[in-house]
Amino acid sequence: MNGEPRIGDVFGELLRDAWAVETGIGPRPLVGGRLPRPVIEIIERDDGLINGAPAAHYLAGPEHWQPYDHRAVDRVRGATLDIGVGGGRIALRLQEFGVPVTGLDVSAGALAVCRRRGVRDLVHATVDEHAGHGRRYDTFLLLGNNLGLIEGRDRAPVFLAALAAMARPGARIIAHGTDPYGTTDPVHTGYHERNRRSGRLGGQLRLRLRYRELGTDWFDYLVCTPDELAGLVRGAGWRLTDVDDADAPYYLATLRLED
Amino acid sequence: MNGEPRIGDVFGELLRDAWAVETGIGPRPLVGGRLPRPVIEIIERDDGLINGAPAAHYLAGPEHWQPYDHRAVDRVRGATLDIGVGGGRIALRLQEFGVPVTGLDVSAGALAVCRRRGVRDLVHATVDEHAGHGRRYDTFLLLGNNLGLIEGRDRAPVFLAALAAMARPGARIIAHGTDPYGTTDPVHTGYHERNRRSGRLGGQLRLRLRYRELGTDWFDYLVCTPDELAGLVRGAGWRLTDVDDADAPYYLATLRLED
Repeated sequence: MNGEPRIGDVFGELLRDAWAVETGIGPRPLVGGRLPRPVIEIIERDDGLINGAPAAHYLAGPEHWQPYDHRAVDRVRGATLDIGVGGGRIALRLQEFGVPVTGLDVSAGALAVCRRRGVRDLVHATVDEHAGHGRRYDTFLLLGNNLGLIEGRDRAPVFLAALAAMARPGARIIAHGTDPYGTTDPVHTGYHERNRRSGRLGGQLRLRLRYRELGTDWFDYLVCTPDELAGLVRGAGWRLTDVDDADAPYYLATLRLED
Repeated sequence: MNGEPRIGDVFGELLRDAWAVETGIGPRPLVGGRLPRPVIEIIERDDGLINGAPAAHYLAGPEHWQPYDHRAVDRVRGATLDIGVGGGRIALRLQEFGVPVTGLDVSAGALAVCRRRGVRDLVHATVDEHAGHGRRYDTFLLLGNNLGLIEGRDRAPVFLAALAAMARPGARIIAHGTDPYGTTDPVHTGYHERNRRSGRLGGQLRLRLRYRELGTDWFDYLVCTPDELAGLVRGAGWRLTDVDDADAPYYLATLRLED
């Protein structure tokens, strides 16, 4: 045995358990069959850094949100694609406000939780797959730090082109990002420096998620500054029109489809 | 980069951060330099199973304890060695009760936290090293599931002999264990079965702990039934005289030094 996880729907299993804890519906995880086991998402970085984060925030109601999530929702207009819908917290809020919202996720388990929580329009696909489905949107949401899904220099133009292919005229992307460079912790500054030396963006994290016996494959997830983002969107069909950094180092970036 | 942690004082770093969160003394861990980051211990098993557990329980006061911890403390008498003193919760309680208690740990960081919390008598050593120090005890505590420190068939007699070498006549070991076999989860039953096929006890876990960029080496940690325990102590200078399984699958085993 080598300590390696089995590849599977980490995020779906995690959300299913978190939802069971929150609602009491379905078996909830226990230690020794007796004591409640907290549902914790484990995030590994390829330099050996590892963090655990309680999963409850994926299901949290608006009263528990950070301010930038509320401001993101306030910016939504028209038919909206919530990319990486997760536990559905944003989509449920938009439904309440009467916004026509579609939740997109690659996790079948996440979509099952969304469905049970009342999210009505759900699609099980990648962004690239969904771009072939013929649907069109006015707003694309990348919340919960999901600006990271643009990955880096290679993937960003492809990802943004897929969104452009689904965009109505005047469409916008509203993305939550984090400036990674405010830290002096050598664990992070050293990682950024090694990334740059190998031609990657400093905050181009290589991660995998784990939960119980399951893991994802390693994937790139980009944490970048608004300036780095502006560079990545140039020539990719979108223009960075606004950066709301009232909660720095977190920010909301608004990108508008070029005419 | 291969995702492997750097070997270090996982437990000490974890406890230092948990203590900073609890007391507000010292820098507390943050996400993005801004939002509090919960302190979570990560436990990996060599089959790829991974769990995160909030660290606060290591510092918890008696009002948050499980019932068996109270009953364990009630059984203590005389000079007491708290093996794997951790955050010092048990040692602090014994000090309140006027019990002469020594806290033993291999983690320098754990001992630093114990010292700041007021544990007076602390030793930085393994059980084997401490057996050479000439100190004698009436009670040995293996709480917080630390019966696991007996590891398995090879290590148990050596470990128990070290305790016997430090034991006064009539000395007792009070150990907290867990019966691992109540589960039907194939992740666990399969692990137990593979262990048995390779000559190990079913619940002889191979684990490592991780926190942030640090990890421990892989080590054996035994989760066994009272019957398995009775077999392991036979001929090792101790006799299993009582099993309190009022909180099954958890139990308190009392071992008495043979005359």
